[in-house]
Amino acid sequence: MNYDLLKGVRVIESSAFIAAPLCGMTLAQLGAEVIRVDLIGGGLDYQRLPMMPEGRSIYWTSLNKAKKSVAIDIKRPEGRELLQRLVGAPGEAGGILLTNIGTPWLSHKTLSELRPDLISCTIEGNFDGSTAVDYTVNCATGYPMLTGTGSPDRPVNHTLPAWDVICANQAATAIVAALARRQGSGEGAEIRLALSDSAFSTLSNLGLLTESELIGQQRESLGNYLYGAFGHDFATSDGRRVMIVAISARQWRALVKACDLQSAVQSLEAALGVNFDSEADRFEGRELLAALIKQWCIKRPLAEIEAHFIQHGVAYGPYRTVRQLLQEDKRVSLDNPIFERIQTPGVGEHLAAGTPLRFGHMSRQAVQPAPELGEHTDEVLADVLGLSDQQIGALRDSGIVGGS
Amino acid sequence: MNYDLLKGVRVIESSAFIAAPLCGMTLAQLGAEVIRVDLIGGGLDYQRLPMMPEGRSIYWTSLNKAKKSVAIDIKRPEGRELLQRLVGAPGEAGGILLTNIGTPWLSHKTLSELRPDLISCTIEGNFDGSTAVDYTVNCATGYPMLTGTGSPDRPVNHTLPAWDVICANQAATAIVAALARRQGSGEGAEIRLALSDSAFSTLSNLGLLTESELIGQQRESLGNYLYGAFGHDFATSDGRRVMIVAISARQWRALVKACDLQSAVQSLEAALGVNFDSEADRFEGRELLAALIKQWCIKRPLAEIEAHFIQHGVAYGPYRTVRQLLQEDKRVSLDNPIFERIQTPGVGEHLAAGTPLRFGHMSRQAVQPAPELGEHTDEVLADVLGLSDQQIGALRDSGIVGGS
Repeated sequence: MNYDLLKGVRVIESSAFIAAPLCGMTLAQLGAEVIRVDLIGGGLDYQRLPMMPEGRSIYWTSLNKAKKSVAIDIKRPEGRELLQRLVGAPGEAGGILLTNIGTPWLSHKTLSELRPDLISCTIEGNFDGSTAVDYTVNCATGYPMLTGTGSPDRPVNHTLPAWDVICANQAATAIVAALARRQGSGEGAEIRLALSDSAFSTLSNLGLLTESELIGQQRESLGNYLYGAFGHDFATSDGRRVMIVAISARQWRALVKACDLQSAVQSLEAALGVNFDSEADRFEGRELLAALIKQWCIKRPLAEIEAHFIQHGVAYGPYRTVRQLLQEDKRVSLDNPIFERIQTPGVGEHLAAGTPLRFGHMSRQAVQPAPELGEHTDEVLADVLGLSDQQIGALRDSGIVGGS
Repeated sequence: MNYDLLKGVRVIESSAFIAAPLCGMTLAQLGAEVIRVDLIGGGLDYQRLPMMPEGRSIYWTSLNKAKKSVAIDIKRPEGRELLQRLVGAPGEAGGILLTNIGTPWLSHKTLSELRPDLISCTIEGNFDGSTAVDYTVNCATGYPMLTGTGSPDRPVNHTLPAWDVICANQAATAIVAALARRQGSGEGAEIRLALSDSAFSTLSNLGLLTESELIGQQRESLGNYLYGAFGHDFATSDGRRVMIVAISARQWRALVKACDLQSAVQSLEAALGVNFDSEADRFEGRELLAALIKQWCIKRPLAEIEAHFIQHGVAYGPYRTVRQLLQEDKRVSLDNPIFERIQTPGVGEHLAAGTPLRFGHMSRQAVQPAPELGEHTDEVLADVLGLSDQQIGALRDSGIVGGS
């Protein structure tokens, strides 16, 4: 954990892939004791690429930092009962389940018999309980037809599993809100969140549904132009690229000044009868404006452009590969308080982010790596369920629990 | 609000654009009284595209559902003092500020003098307080070089402002966690969250930083293939497209069976010495596998493909434009409990999502539209600050407050 806001909260997580594990990690980094339960030897996502050569999955270890790991064979009834008992264990801390497994034996109804104040959060594909994953949701959002050179014939998927990440954070808000309520009233909560609802509600919140319904506007893909104001990418003389945006009038005037385009822009405005201080006019005239700015950028190396833009307050950013990001961007380095170097078992020493949240007047604690699989099996069975060494040994002998 | 989990919580929001307003809306939909403060006549984002013809911004009204709106001229000292007093007003409910305006008069230090238990959440561009927007952050993440046909020379920006949406939800979790803590201890919290940290921590959490640092792996753009397993888009005989994925072995076997490819796949496995039950082998052999599946899909209309895929449990989704989504996807209709038809002033009647979260055993309340600008100025000044009609009248006369 990085902060102890959620100290004294125990979450049992039975999950795989991105949304549920990332939710659990979010809570763990804010101080909750998050116990991830996996099959002995690992579940569906334990070997997910990228893998360290002869080592562990970078995917799994990146998404499970700061958690405890317990290995239980939940394919067997005895294993299922153990998981149920972990969720239902008495005490103020417990009674919280996070899962993306929709199954009767992990349902709110079943588990709330053990703890009436149960908080359960089930992440599902669609609101009707049917399956969906980020990729099979994203194709329905319309975004692939709007991205890059995307069209209905040749959609372009984005690569970031954005809906998974959004869903994870929405689930985290829900669990913490339910916790705050339980603190006051003692009441539990049954939370359900469909990945596709994370996506479709975002379309509603960003106005895309309403513009289509009410004004019949079907956005077209704009390449790297941004919708509704001015923004595009430009090449520099030294083979780099920068993204430049002018959403507000102030950003626009800064850009014009930095590129010394005042007279060119004024002439264009007079000739066309437009006012580029208006974001709608900038959007309409984006190709003309980009042609002007392109000339300026291509004559200068990135360093010179950056110096000019910083001086004038232009909103811009250089494009970077992940390697360049690690090499040259101080925001992804130990200069940034959210980053630390950590040692992950089976992976090695590497830079890793803790929570992006920064709380003043609270000491930020070390970023904790992912556990080894089953590292905390014995500890958790003893501490949470009060099992004896002998009982734990018997569970191990019969293959119901495992782990290092 | 859709639920009353955060009932009795009042958040003063001084914000613009996406991240901070979407955070506020998230809290409002969970029951907080969220009072958005804008300049009289609206701030930077009040006319943001898309606009209703002769009406209001669909962008603004979509991002500010379920809030109260107060119009104050915060460019004047008297207006700033009013905003400060709204944040600092006594009572259990208050003392919460959400902003993306980094300015001394709205700083935690200044406002905590009014309320020592202040919770402030400031969303900033970068961790050092410098400016950044979604587009100028995204270019640094490496994703544009991995998206579609993206390369270092020709990056492809994604269109979804994903970092803004992620940042909004992270801020919501932080505020609710700070609230839960204040309930217990009475302590306030100063929260800072940089948009670029939302992005860079996501790169860490998804393993991209570590794979670059430790194994020097520089991912290349894969078009619509997914990384690490099998997934691609395919054309149907009736001019539609479907995204098909096989991440787990079960999904893979369902796909093989649905497309009747058992013998073809077995022959390929024998010839190549691979096992497509392994996700790494599926990823390696993705082009071969896609060629097989392409043949099957192009001979069938979408409806037939869907029937087959549903029967066999294949993970797939049709591509849709936003218009098709509204026309044919029941997940974006009144069949889905998160959607309702609402009436937004200056926009009209339209489908809108409430919170994607669904809480069992709590009644879901109506989706509330965005307010008119300044609709609640008088109400809030009277209720929160206890101002008399005469005092409010004087503030209106001097142009310090406004609104309908």
